[in-house]
Amino acid sequence: MRLVTYRATVEAEARLGALVDNLVVDLQRFGATKGIDLPSTMLGFIDLGPQAVKIVSALIDEAKGLFPIGTALPFANVRLLAPIPRPRKNIFGIGLNYTEHVAESAKSLDTSADLPRQPVIFSKPPTTVIGPNEPILHNAEITQQLDWEVELAAVIGTTAKGVAREGALAYVFGYTVLIDMSARDCRRAGQWIYSKGQDSFAPMGPCIVTADEIPDPQTLDLNLSVNGVEKQNSNTAYMLFKVDELIADLSKGITLEPGDIIATGTPAGVGAGRDPQEWVWPGDTIVATVDRIGTLRHPVVAAAGTAA
Amino acid sequence: MRLVTYRATVEAEARLGALVDNLVVDLQRFGATKGIDLPSTMLGFIDLGPQAVKIVSALIDEAKGLFPIGTALPFANVRLLAPIPRPRKNIFGIGLNYTEHVAESAKSLDTSADLPRQPVIFSKPPTTVIGPNEPILHNAEITQQLDWEVELAAVIGTTAKGVAREGALAYVFGYTVLIDMSARDCRRAGQWIYSKGQDSFAPMGPCIVTADEIPDPQTLDLNLSVNGVEKQNSNTAYMLFKVDELIADLSKGITLEPGDIIATGTPAGVGAGRDPQEWVWPGDTIVATVDRIGTLRHPVVAAAGTAA
Repeated sequence: MRLVTYRATVEAEARLGALVDNLVVDLQRFGATKGIDLPSTMLGFIDLGPQAVKIVSALIDEAKGLFPIGTALPFANVRLLAPIPRPRKNIFGIGLNYTEHVAESAKSLDTSADLPRQPVIFSKPPTTVIGPNEPILHNAEITQQLDWEVELAAVIGTTAKGVAREGALAYVFGYTVLIDMSARDCRRAGQWIYSKGQDSFAPMGPCIVTADEIPDPQTLDLNLSVNGVEKQNSNTAYMLFKVDELIADLSKGITLEPGDIIATGTPAGVGAGRDPQEWVWPGDTIVATVDRIGTLRHPVVAAAGTAA
Repeated sequence: MRLVTYRATVEAEARLGALVDNLVVDLQRFGATKGIDLPSTMLGFIDLGPQAVKIVSALIDEAKGLFPIGTALPFANVRLLAPIPRPRKNIFGIGLNYTEHVAESAKSLDTSADLPRQPVIFSKPPTTVIGPNEPILHNAEITQQLDWEVELAAVIGTTAKGVAREGALAYVFGYTVLIDMSARDCRRAGQWIYSKGQDSFAPMGPCIVTADEIPDPQTLDLNLSVNGVEKQNSNTAYMLFKVDELIADLSKGITLEPGDIIATGTPAGVGAGRDPQEWVWPGDTIVATVDRIGTLRHPVVAAAGTAA
């Protein structure tokens, strides 16, 4: 399934839907017509466990595109939000997880040229999350080095503590696209949270594709362009630490919980690694795609009260 | 007020209370006897804003220690949990925020000997939080360098974005004690979240003292002992970046929200900075106190499935 959090243009409430052709099927309302009590939020649905994905997926297939009146809307009539508009904790980010990005970072930032021996982890607060088309805020009072990073993000479905790499993908609910916006000049003594944790720095979406539809997450093309010029283009095959390794590693010390988000790192081509370096500014547009999931498109705008 | 989250020994539900002499007053039940609808959780109470503190505080004063039957329990009959058992996002931690700790860290860890020019920020996931007396987990599979850090933590009461240092303390709901447990050998390319973010690495409590009772948070003695031997002893006066500066700095880029927790850094005396270095092991006991707030006491135990 391709799951979204959406708002009908004529009502205010954020709701859980599934994309089926050019329709958004409201899962709670559709479930009700089948006598099934489903939640109205993505996190509520994730909490039901993997069985719910199977059941709802089968019901949607059975409907063969005909959904009872009031349970589906044309896609054109809705606005998508981030699939998880408000995560329950900071997003886990993974740094330096593609070989060539390690090299470009060592040239231009303060990181080592050696490949990391273990995943490099940081976090982004829930206040970083924005949905498709929402503006990325450029706060000129604190950064003149705003950079882009397209990433595959894994959403955890089942509590994971001390899980082995083998089988670790069974703990994934699904996958989404995340742009890990990074104000390079806001690093603090090597810590990245202030550079990657500012409001609006985690555009996410457009949907979560459930894990059953992406059995191997290490096969996905991903790319990013700025103002129509391609800047990043790679494949998740080139991750240093694969999704299953990340889950095994993190869960050794940190219990992963349903709804947790792991942004798995970015390939080469960020602005900091270019010669000369490039940054985004108000007026720019960033478009990021991960194959089989979808595309995010975001304008960069000056943060309120700041000049570019 | 001294606010706690508690569990009566004879019931399971975590509830919000106020410590009054040797009683725990259940705020929701006490409020109901006054015709006031109060929440049963700390976060729910924080969300009501600073006015609620004034109103409830006045009602408690009026009661002069006589609380209606069923609204107060002897302190001895309850078990305290962390005042915020489940934060809504990662705890913000501040590193290298006391001069002498900067010096000891530079000697023994990979940090700079220069004083930071801006606050150094990291985070601890909600899964790190444990309440008074709960065990700190020592996972010998991933650390042989488990260290202690006593800290004053500020709890945000009001949404703060771009606030000036002057007046920033008005955004504080209250203060608590936090031990920032740190597995020094789990740093990853300079990032601290894996060393400071493991399950049980944020003992918190025993209460939140509301900000009206601590008008100047930079006047508090704080100390920590291991197995009865004092290791840290300082005063919050020696913070490099004071609580109001931290709020102003963080809120420039990151919106702070009600219930957010900022652990403000630790003074000198951590195990990594000693010669020879010292670490805690299963069987050890850590006791940490911040003046006017209270004392935390925690055993270190081997994590399930691991040997010391």
